[in-house]
Amino acid sequence: MLKEKLSIVKIGGNIIEDDTALDDFLKLFSNLDGKKILVHGGGKRATAIASKLGIESHMVNGRRITDAETLEVITMVYGGLVNKNIVAKLQALHIDAIGLTGADANSILSDKRPVKDIDFGFVGDVKEVANKSINKLLDANFIPVFCAITHDGKGQLLNTNADTVTSQLAIGMSEIYETSIYYCFELHGVLKDIKNKNSVVKHINSKLYKELLDEGIIADGMLPKLENCFDALKNGVKTINMGNISMLTQENDNFTRITL
Amino acid sequence: MLKEKLSIVKIGGNIIEDDTALDDFLKLFSNLDGKKILVHGGGKRATAIASKLGIESHMVNGRRITDAETLEVITMVYGGLVNKNIVAKLQALHIDAIGLTGADANSILSDKRPVKDIDFGFVGDVKEVANKSINKLLDANFIPVFCAITHDGKGQLLNTNADTVTSQLAIGMSEIYETSIYYCFELHGVLKDIKNKNSVVKHINSKLYKELLDEGIIADGMLPKLENCFDALKNGVKTINMGNISMLTQENDNFTRITL
Repeated sequence: MLKEKLSIVKIGGNIIEDDTALDDFLKLFSNLDGKKILVHGGGKRATAIASKLGIESHMVNGRRITDAETLEVITMVYGGLVNKNIVAKLQALHIDAIGLTGADANSILSDKRPVKDIDFGFVGDVKEVANKSINKLLDANFIPVFCAITHDGKGQLLNTNADTVTSQLAIGMSEIYETSIYYCFELHGVLKDIKNKNSVVKHINSKLYKELLDEGIIADGMLPKLENCFDALKNGVKTINMGNISMLTQENDNFTRITL
Repeated sequence: MLKEKLSIVKIGGNIIEDDTALDDFLKLFSNLDGKKILVHGGGKRATAIASKLGIESHMVNGRRITDAETLEVITMVYGGLVNKNIVAKLQALHIDAIGLTGADANSILSDKRPVKDIDFGFVGDVKEVANKSINKLLDANFIPVFCAITHDGKGQLLNTNADTVTSQLAIGMSEIYETSIYYCFELHGVLKDIKNKNSVVKHINSKLYKELLDEGIIADGMLPKLENCFDALKNGVKTINMGNISMLTQENDNFTRITL
């Protein structure tokens, strides 16, 4: 059975923090054909507002330690400030957006991360995506805009990495749709030579991925991202695209497409 | 033609600021029969967080002057902190809540208030309630939870009084539903004798309203509230109830019911 297509687009801080970049992105997003979902972070803004409120931000391996005060800031910044401004901007572009955390429509259930070496605090590991509930919104022609907050179903909001929210949403929706992820970031994709911005690897599959790993071309920050991508592909996601927002236009093929 | 019933319940700062009161209220709200919408304010919390951020709050006639910085705080506090915590708590009570501003689902369009004697800043006067859009959510068995933020359709969020959001929502939904408003506040209703908390006027209609006005029993803060109520009733709302949250239980009839 042919499934309908669904695009899940993720933007990070570099776009959110720059009004022009955000407006440019939202225009491209609004023109993207078919059903779609937007996921955004907001960590830089949260750090800035936490600092104004006299709350220190502690990061371990790029993940925020989320105590009760920090969770309040994250709920304000991700769920309120960033999310609702994006929704209002999308409405101005005639996109019928609806802003969500994982608590809204009970869409993303998480478990609070167990304490091992590090106590991450109110951080959630995604347990279940309510694809039927999210699909009720898509079927009603709403465009869901998710921030990186989930909940435990018992009244507790939980901070959850935006890349993880994106891949888990895509995996969950793959039961109903043929899903593609678009990870928008500064670069045009995975680079063969980190010093050369034009050395984009245009297509990575499992075989090439192993070769690039062996050659040491994929390392550092890109490694967990790509691990995460192949995990999503193995769990039903059709295609993952990584690159600059220009990849959302059909004319541009200068980005990295990842398939199994 | 008989219309289906819809209850629109509004809570203010006295409930939001008190965890026990909020939990008590949410339990009663979750047990309320039929389709329902929740509207909340959050002004006290916004004032506290604005103050922590070094932003002064200016009020004129009980309305907040909303400059750009204040609008950011309101978007964080109403749209994020308060709204998303209520949504998470309702999900724990098995109520499939979805938190909204008027920008979400393009549900409430406003005009920025024109500057006359006072420049209220980013404050919106409601122009249009998208009742069909909101009804898509109700028909999908979601419970909308609105905060007191609307938008102008051009990308601008606007601060809007929560009582006004409530009455305008009720008026707008009256085309589809038989609507009842529940304004929850500290008192058990409109009091005949302000010094006697047990002197609740149990039913006010247009005729009694005029009498109470003539006798000077309705004055001060209650006057604009009741003006607003009769405006809503004249525009299609069936019943307005004012009182303590205990009015949401069927056993209790100690509150003020207002009809034309």
